[in-house]
Amino acid sequence: MIMKHNYLNNLPLDEAKRIYKEHLASVGFGGGTETVKVTDACGRTLKNAAYAVICSPHYNASAMDGVAVRAEITFPASEKTPVTLTPDDYAVVDTGDPIPDGCDAVIMIEDLIDRGNGDYGIIASHRPWQNVRQVGEDICMGDMIAPSGTVLTPSLCGALLAGGITEIEVYKRPLAGVIPTGDEIVAPTSDPQKGDIIEFNSTVFKGMLDSFGADAKVYPITPDKKELIRAAVEKALEECDIVLVSAGSSAGRDDYTGEIISSLGTVLVHGIAIKPGKPAVLGEAKGKPVIGLPGYPVSAIVVMDEIVSEVCAAYYSKPCPKRETVKAVLAKKVVSSLKYGEYVRVSLGRINGRLIASPLARGAGVITSFTKSDGVLAVPQNSEGIEAGAQVNIRLHKPLCEIEDTLVITGSHDPLIDEVADFLAKKGAPFRVCSTHVGSMGAIYAIKGGLAHMGGIHLLDTETGEYNKSYVEKYLPDGGVTVRGVGRVQGLMVRGGNPLGIRDFSDVKNARYVNRQRGAGTRILCDYLIKKNGMKPEEINGYANEEFTHTAVAALIAAGNADAGLGIYSAAKMYGLDFIPICNETYEFLVAKNELDNPAVKAFLDVLYSDEFKKRLGEMGGYTE
Amino acid sequence: MIMKHNYLNNLPLDEAKRIYKEHLASVGFGGGTETVKVTDACGRTLKNAAYAVICSPHYNASAMDGVAVRAEITFPASEKTPVTLTPDDYAVVDTGDPIPDGCDAVIMIEDLIDRGNGDYGIIASHRPWQNVRQVGEDICMGDMIAPSGTVLTPSLCGALLAGGITEIEVYKRPLAGVIPTGDEIVAPTSDPQKGDIIEFNSTVFKGMLDSFGADAKVYPITPDKKELIRAAVEKALEECDIVLVSAGSSAGRDDYTGEIISSLGTVLVHGIAIKPGKPAVLGEAKGKPVIGLPGYPVSAIVVMDEIVSEVCAAYYSKPCPKRETVKAVLAKKVVSSLKYGEYVRVSLGRINGRLIASPLARGAGVITSFTKSDGVLAVPQNSEGIEAGAQVNIRLHKPLCEIEDTLVITGSHDPLIDEVADFLAKKGAPFRVCSTHVGSMGAIYAIKGGLAHMGGIHLLDTETGEYNKSYVEKYLPDGGVTVRGVGRVQGLMVRGGNPLGIRDFSDVKNARYVNRQRGAGTRILCDYLIKKNGMKPEEINGYANEEFTHTAVAALIAAGNADAGLGIYSAAKMYGLDFIPICNETYEFLVAKNELDNPAVKAFLDVLYSDEFKKRLGEMGGYTE
Repeated sequence: MIMKHNYLNNLPLDEAKRIYKEHLASVGFGGGTETVKVTDACGRTLKNAAYAVICSPHYNASAMDGVAVRAEITFPASEKTPVTLTPDDYAVVDTGDPIPDGCDAVIMIEDLIDRGNGDYGIIASHRPWQNVRQVGEDICMGDMIAPSGTVLTPSLCGALLAGGITEIEVYKRPLAGVIPTGDEIVAPTSDPQKGDIIEFNSTVFKGMLDSFGADAKVYPITPDKKELIRAAVEKALEECDIVLVSAGSSAGRDDYTGEIISSLGTVLVHGIAIKPGKPAVLGEAKGKPVIGLPGYPVSAIVVMDEIVSEVCAAYYSKPCPKRETVKAVLAKKVVSSLKYGEYVRVSLGRINGRLIASPLARGAGVITSFTKSDGVLAVPQNSEGIEAGAQVNIRLHKPLCEIEDTLVITGSHDPLIDEVADFLAKKGAPFRVCSTHVGSMGAIYAIKGGLAHMGGIHLLDTETGEYNKSYVEKYLPDGGVTVRGVGRVQGLMVRGGNPLGIRDFSDVKNARYVNRQRGAGTRILCDYLIKKNGMKPEEINGYANEEFTHTAVAALIAAGNADAGLGIYSAAKMYGLDFIPICNETYEFLVAKNELDNPAVKAFLDVLYSDEFKKRLGEMGGYTE
Repeated sequence: MIMKHNYLNNLPLDEAKRIYKEHLASVGFGGGTETVKVTDACGRTLKNAAYAVICSPHYNASAMDGVAVRAEITFPASEKTPVTLTPDDYAVVDTGDPIPDGCDAVIMIEDLIDRGNGDYGIIASHRPWQNVRQVGEDICMGDMIAPSGTVLTPSLCGALLAGGITEIEVYKRPLAGVIPTGDEIVAPTSDPQKGDIIEFNSTVFKGMLDSFGADAKVYPITPDKKELIRAAVEKALEECDIVLVSAGSSAGRDDYTGEIISSLGTVLVHGIAIKPGKPAVLGEAKGKPVIGLPGYPVSAIVVMDEIVSEVCAAYYSKPCPKRETVKAVLAKKVVSSLKYGEYVRVSLGRINGRLIASPLARGAGVITSFTKSDGVLAVPQNSEGIEAGAQVNIRLHKPLCEIEDTLVITGSHDPLIDEVADFLAKKGAPFRVCSTHVGSMGAIYAIKGGLAHMGGIHLLDTETGEYNKSYVEKYLPDGGVTVRGVGRVQGLMVRGGNPLGIRDFSDVKNARYVNRQRGAGTRILCDYLIKKNGMKPEEINGYANEEFTHTAVAALIAAGNADAGLGIYSAAKMYGLDFIPICNETYEFLVAKNELDNPAVKAFLDVLYSDEFKKRLGEMGGYTE
C-alpha cells in the first residue's frame, strides 16, 4: 500500500538555526575541554585567556656576539678619543648569553679594534642597555598572550612557550558520529550491482567536519529498520558528542529519523525552507545534537554547511563561523522559488577585470556541481531570482587566491580540454582551468559577454559547409578570434554490435534517439542531417531528450536508455559502442580578442599544439590534423 | 680569542629561490607517492588525473517515491481525460530504486489518485525519463573527475567514490626533520635558569610545516658540537625528506650548519638579502633539502614562510603556494634599507571603510609581533621605505573575514583592555579586539587620522589639573568624543621592600629610573613631576630609557635593571613591587565621533561598565570609580 508523505515544516533557515541553537545552549551542549602540551596545541582553541608566567627574555641577554661592559666606561670614547678596554673591563658574550652582573651594555665584535694582549680599542660610546635584550622585551609576565577562544596559530604556540606555559586547557575536538542508513546503500566499490547506491556521504561529511574542528566516527551502514537505526543512534549518543544520521530524513515511507529522535529526545525542526536541504531533522537527545541529514549528497552538504558548521562552532562557544565572501557579476539569470531560500553553486573566474560567477547545475543529486563549485550564491526566500549581469555576493568555498588565476573555458565539450588541463597541471602551471559545457553557441555568447577567456566551437554553416567563420563574423564582428583546434570525426554512436543495423542518419527514425542541447554544435549538425535526409524533428523518438556532453550521450546508449546519438569517436570508444562516421568537422577555439596575450591562453594552446599532446589525441582516437 | 664573522652572501630572495629550486629539481627532489583509500584521502594531493570508472548513477534510478510506468501509457492523460493505471501497469518504487525493465518514467505519489483495488488515476502525461535519474546524470564513466595535482576536497572524495574509485595514488606528505641546536637551548619549562633559552622554534615550525602539507619530526636538542650536529643531520637525512637545522646558521663562532652541509652535500646559498632572515643556509645532501634556519624566531619564521613553503610545494610538483593579498592603507611610515628586502608585519582593521595596515615592532626576536600579525608587507630591496597613507599590498596570514570584524583600539596601555577583550570573547562577540600600545597622544593621532575606532587616554593638563578635555578640544575640535573609562592610581613602582627608601618622586634622582615613551600619558605625568619638583630631565639617570607598557617598566624594576618608574598599581602588584601612590588619574576612552554607533564599540563599553567587570577591576587593584 502506498503511503502518502507526512507533512513537513517549512521553517525559514535563520529561524530554524536560532531555535535550534537556543535549545542546544539551554541543555548545556558543548564546551568540553582537555589539557594538552603546548608543543601539540597548534590549531586548538583556548578555553581561557592565557597569561605569561615568565618574561621573555627572562634575563638580560646579549643581542650580539661581542663583549659585555659597563656602559659608563665607553662614555668618553670617540674617533678622536678612543678608549682602551683591558681584560678586566669586559666579558666575552655570544648572542643570547646572559649579561654578567655589573654590566649593562654589549659592544659588537665588529666595533672592537684589536690592540693585542687581550686589549681592545673602541671609538664610540655606548648607552646603557645598548645591544642588550632586556628582560621582558618580548613578553612580560602577567601579560595576556591571547584571550579566551583564540585558535592557536604556530606563532601563538611559540609565544605561550616563551611565556613559560607548557600545558594549556583547550576545547576538545567534538566527536561526531555519522550513521549511514538505507537498504540500498553499499560500501564504496568499483563494481556496484544494479540498485546499489554507493555510500559516500560519510566521506564528504568526515572532511567537512574536520574543517569545522570536529572529528568523525563513521558507523557501519544500518539497514532501514527503525529498531536498528534507533539502536545505532543510542550507541552513537553514548560514544559521541554529536550524532548525524544520513538519509531517511524526508517524510517518506522509510524515513524514521524524526520519530526516532522524538522517542529519544526532542525534535526542534523537521523541514527547513531551503533548497536543496529541506527535509533535515534538527533534534536533541541526552544534551547532544542529533541531526537527520537528507540522503541526496548535495542536500546533505548544504545542511552540513549551513547548520552543522554552526553546531560545531557552538561546541567551541563561538557564535558562528566566519565565511569569506566576494562580490561578483552573475553570468546567467538565476530563477528562484518564493517558498525556499536557495543555495546556487557557482564557479568563479576573472575576465577583463570582472569577477564572473557562473551558476552550476541545480539538481539536488549532482555532486559534480559541488566539486566544481568555487562558492555559493544564497538567494533569499523572498526573491524570485536574480538577473544576469547583477552584482552578487558569493560565499567562497576556496581562498580567493586559488580562484584568481583561472582560465575560463566555456563552450563546446571535448574531453581534450580536460586532457590539456591535466598536461598543464603536470607542468606546474600557475593557473587552473575551469571548463563549462554549454555548447558552441554558448561559447559565442560567453565571449561576447566577457564571461569567458575562450571556448570550443564547431558550428557548421549549412550553406557553405564551413565551420565557425560565418557565425563568428555574424555574432562577434569585433570581439573574437578563432584559433586552430583539432579536426574530429562526428558520427552516430550505437550499441556495440549495432543490433538495430543502423547504417546512416536516416535510420534513426527506427530507433530511440538521444539529442544534444540547443546551441551545441552537435545539435546543429543533427538538425542539418534531419533536413538533409528529408526528416522532421517530430518523427524522431527522443529528439527532445537533451544531454550536455558526448560521454553522457554514450552512457545512455550503452545503458540501453537510447539506441543512437551523434557524437565523437573517443566517446564511442570509451563505452564500447559502434561508431558510424558521418563527417569530419573543425573544432576550433574562439578567444576573446583581448585575451590573446593572456599567458594562460597561450600556455593552453602551446600544450594543444605540442607533439606530446598529439600523441595523447592519437590514443583517444577520432582526431585528425 | 674572539673570531671575526665569516663573510655571508647577500643574495636577493628571488634569485636565492630560483637557484635553490632549480638545484632541487635537478637532483630529483620530491614526488614521493602512496596509495590510500579514498575514504581517507581528504586533503591529499592527486598524483595523476582521476577518471571515473563507472557512471553515477550507474543505473536508471527513480528520483521520487512513486510508481514506475511506460511513459507512453500516460500520454493521453489530462484533467478532462484521466487515465486509470491498474496494478499491471505500474511498479512501486522508492527514491533511488532501479527502474524496472520496460519502464521509462516515474509518477510521484502526490500525482496518484487512489481509485481503490490498487487502481490509480492520473491527470497529466509524463514524458520519457521524467522523474528518473538516468545513467550518468552526475558522472559519466571516462570523465576526468580531477586533473593531476588537485588537492582533494571532501566533495571531490565523494565524487571519486561515486565514480567507482576506492583507492587513489596521492603524494606522500613529506616528512621534515627539525633539529634544534645550541648549548643554551632548553626544552619548554615554566622555570628556566638564567641563560637558558626556551626552545620553541620547533613547535612553530611544526605548525607551519603542517600548513605547507608536511609532517614534522622534532629531534632532541643537539649541543653546539660540530660532530654531534653532523650526526644528527645524517640521521635525519636517512629518516626524513627534508632537514631543517634550527639556529647556528649565521657566520659566527658556534655556527656550523654551512660547513656541515658542505661536507655532506652542497650549499647553494648562505645569506639572503632579506631582513629578518639573512643568515639562512640553503643546501642539499642525498637529493634532499637541508636548510639552516636562523636562531631568532622571527628570522626563522620569515625563512620558513618564504622558502620552506616553496620547498614543500616543490615536493608536490607545485610552482609555489598561492598567498591571499589585500590592499590596505599604511598607518605609519615604514623605513627600509636598500641592502635588504624587508618583511614588515602589520595588523589590519577596517575603520570608516578603509582597511588600515599598522606596522608592528621590527625587532628580529619579537615573537609577539608575529602573533599579533595579520599580514606581511614586503618592502622590496630597492626601496628606502613607504610613506604613511600609501596604499600597500598586504600578504595575509589570516582569512580576510576574520580580520574584517575588528575593534581597533590604539592608545594608552592598560591591562583592562585585554580583560574586556577576554570578557567579549567569552560572550561570543562576533568581532575581535586589536589593541596597540602607542600612548595617549598616539590615540589622539590615530583617531584624528581615521586609523582606530577608539583609544585610551590619560593626558594631564598641568595648568588645570584636569585630564583629557583640553587636549581633545585642541587636537580634535570636531572629531572625537571622550567617554568614561576608569579612575586609576599612578605612582612610583620600586623593588619589593623599597631597598633605596624612596618616598616620593624627588627621590628618583638617587636611583636608576625607567621612563615611558614620549606621547604616553605616564610620560607627561613624569615631566610634570620633574618640573614640579624643580628637577631637570638630565639629572635623572635613565630618563632616556623608554618602555611602552606598565608591565615592561615593572619587569625591569623587578629584574634589577632599574630602581624606579611610574606606573599603575596593578602592574606593581603583579611583579611584587612596592608602590608609592602619587595621584589619582582619569583614564578615559577617546572614540571617533562616527564610531559611537559601532556595535563593537558599544559592546566594549557595555562590558567595561558592567558589574561583572567591576569585580575584575577590583581583583586587579588600583582602580577607582
